[in-house]
Amino acid sequence: MSTKRIHNFNAGPAALPLPVLEEIQASFLNFNGSGMSITEVSHRSKWFDDVINDAVVRIRRLLNMDETYHVLFLQGGASLQFAMIPMNLLRDGESADYVNTGTWATKAIQEAQLLGKSVRVAASSEDRNFCYIPDHIHFDSNAVYAHITSNNTIKGTQWPIYPDTHSVPLTADMSSDFMSRPFDVKPFGLIYAGAQKNIGPAGVCVVIIRDDMLKRASGNIPTMLKYTTHASKNSMYNTPPCFGVYTIQLVMKWLEESIGGLKAMDAINCKKASCLYSVIDASSFYKGTADKNSRSLMNVTFRLPSEELEKKFVQEALMENMGGLKGHRSVGGCRASIYNATTLESVQTLADFMKTFERKNG
Amino acid sequence: MSTKRIHNFNAGPAALPLPVLEEIQASFLNFNGSGMSITEVSHRSKWFDDVINDAVVRIRRLLNMDETYHVLFLQGGASLQFAMIPMNLLRDGESADYVNTGTWATKAIQEAQLLGKSVRVAASSEDRNFCYIPDHIHFDSNAVYAHITSNNTIKGTQWPIYPDTHSVPLTADMSSDFMSRPFDVKPFGLIYAGAQKNIGPAGVCVVIIRDDMLKRASGNIPTMLKYTTHASKNSMYNTPPCFGVYTIQLVMKWLEESIGGLKAMDAINCKKASCLYSVIDASSFYKGTADKNSRSLMNVTFRLPSEELEKKFVQEALMENMGGLKGHRSVGGCRASIYNATTLESVQTLADFMKTFERKNG
Repeated sequence: MSTKRIHNFNAGPAALPLPVLEEIQASFLNFNGSGMSITEVSHRSKWFDDVINDAVVRIRRLLNMDETYHVLFLQGGASLQFAMIPMNLLRDGESADYVNTGTWATKAIQEAQLLGKSVRVAASSEDRNFCYIPDHIHFDSNAVYAHITSNNTIKGTQWPIYPDTHSVPLTADMSSDFMSRPFDVKPFGLIYAGAQKNIGPAGVCVVIIRDDMLKRASGNIPTMLKYTTHASKNSMYNTPPCFGVYTIQLVMKWLEESIGGLKAMDAINCKKASCLYSVIDASSFYKGTADKNSRSLMNVTFRLPSEELEKKFVQEALMENMGGLKGHRSVGGCRASIYNATTLESVQTLADFMKTFERKNG
Repeated sequence: MSTKRIHNFNAGPAALPLPVLEEIQASFLNFNGSGMSITEVSHRSKWFDDVINDAVVRIRRLLNMDETYHVLFLQGGASLQFAMIPMNLLRDGESADYVNTGTWATKAIQEAQLLGKSVRVAASSEDRNFCYIPDHIHFDSNAVYAHITSNNTIKGTQWPIYPDTHSVPLTADMSSDFMSRPFDVKPFGLIYAGAQKNIGPAGVCVVIIRDDMLKRASGNIPTMLKYTTHASKNSMYNTPPCFGVYTIQLVMKWLEESIGGLKAMDAINCKKASCLYSVIDASSFYKGTADKNSRSLMNVTFRLPSEELEKKFVQEALMENMGGLKGHRSVGGCRASIYNATTLESVQTLADFMKTFERKNG
């Protein structure tokens, strides 16, 4: 079996930093001298306490957050947050604003409605197949929160700057760009991110919730769906997804100690994105699907002149050791997901391939 | 750092089979020639499809189940099932029977009540601190299901044979003895098991649900909490906990191909339990906490003459490379969890240590 690693452009689960994978591998039969695998260590042990506490401290430090923000590691992915957020935050007679920027935002809205909650779509980019991020949005000052999707994995758009909601707490699904760039946490009441794109393996979702939002939970919410259940027990009300939390801890360590924090990460990510967008912008063969001022630094979506050429592009890229370039099944086309762990070298390899492919097929 | 592995008697997360850990380690940077770690592979890929489908097939085969049973891999642990079961199965005006045999059964009952569901405690062993499994239970023939906890991790009891509920479908929390012995699946409408004791890492819960139970779900249940959501998508409505599913697949393969199935596993487990219980029964120094006809093959709970001696026992065992022997914080004493992956050799080492410790301190 080949030991060769691929250039991984998967949309999620996605590439993880090689040094992190190597550390997991090296310690997999004996974690930190415990004589056990990280998968065999009790979550009530000193070993795991150190892991989860270090993960929390590093997330707080990377985002420059004070102790009014609680960092939780939950299960069920962002999809379960679509339900937990309105269940915990919206009481009878209250309403929330949602901005609809694509598939995941739509699902978040639908879930709140399914649960009988009052939500208002404050803005939407559905009129042009979600190829842009709306601006000049008027938020309802009585809304309990304003929900956005910071990066739209499928449509390839990303909020360039977050909207000013005045006093209304922002709530954001950051699954696909969490920890990819620095931002001011203060306007946010709640942030959530399925780990499997930028920070870890599938099966763990980071939720950051501010004290005032945490206190809103009331009523007969299932115990496991209440934020207070998890916040009061440092995410260990029941057995947490230990392996996922451990991987996140290592990725945060890598971000701090190898990359140098979110500002440095952002600089690398901008360079990577620019490397691909400059090929697209210089070409009439490739067409970016997102408006230029809304396009994503994480998911570069583009079309080729025909579906046949798109198929050929994906196949030939794979033969040259580049995987995951097929667009989401709901939109077609091509997509290069270039999260934190996808290296500049991988991106440059892809950019060169794109130029060659255009020369041969354009 | 020592490469020495410990004799692992943890209650969960617990020991995993060494050959499984070694296989995960060996392929961790390049799963099955994909050029990616299993944590980096898309859940929509052929690679992961093969993993999840093989896991399902093996679970079906090991339990001799036909296609009327659906095998799901969910998140949130058994604790989330405490809510999902009544939410999905109990309609207005309907009721379920629960047998209360300890901490986890109590939590299951409380959760159903929290959600406003009608549950009846058909039997309980709370009168003697849950040290036995009730028998001669009268189940309500109109109950939608009868819920039991097959093995009680904390109290060290286990159903020797499952109760006859006549036409009422059994529903069982098998978190701590799932796949430890063969049993007839037919009386069961639903079985669930947090993986982190007998079959995998924390963060994935196996749910086996029969067609007729699946069809009961109705009303405005959050999408992620509906069994039909997951059953209709082969557990991939959203990104599943891929690493956990993969580990379960390997453990099932180990059970089938190295151990030889559940009958063979049961024989080993009986031998292991007997090895420890015979020390306890021959001694007036160690006292088993469970009634003999109810004691668990998985969690051997016992007391020593004093708390000081219990503390000393746990400490000295650890110095001799045996970990996880402290009883659950809610009951004290000692507990040796001897799940599938804890070897007979480890158990014999402990039995010898127990005899020596008694000689020195008795």
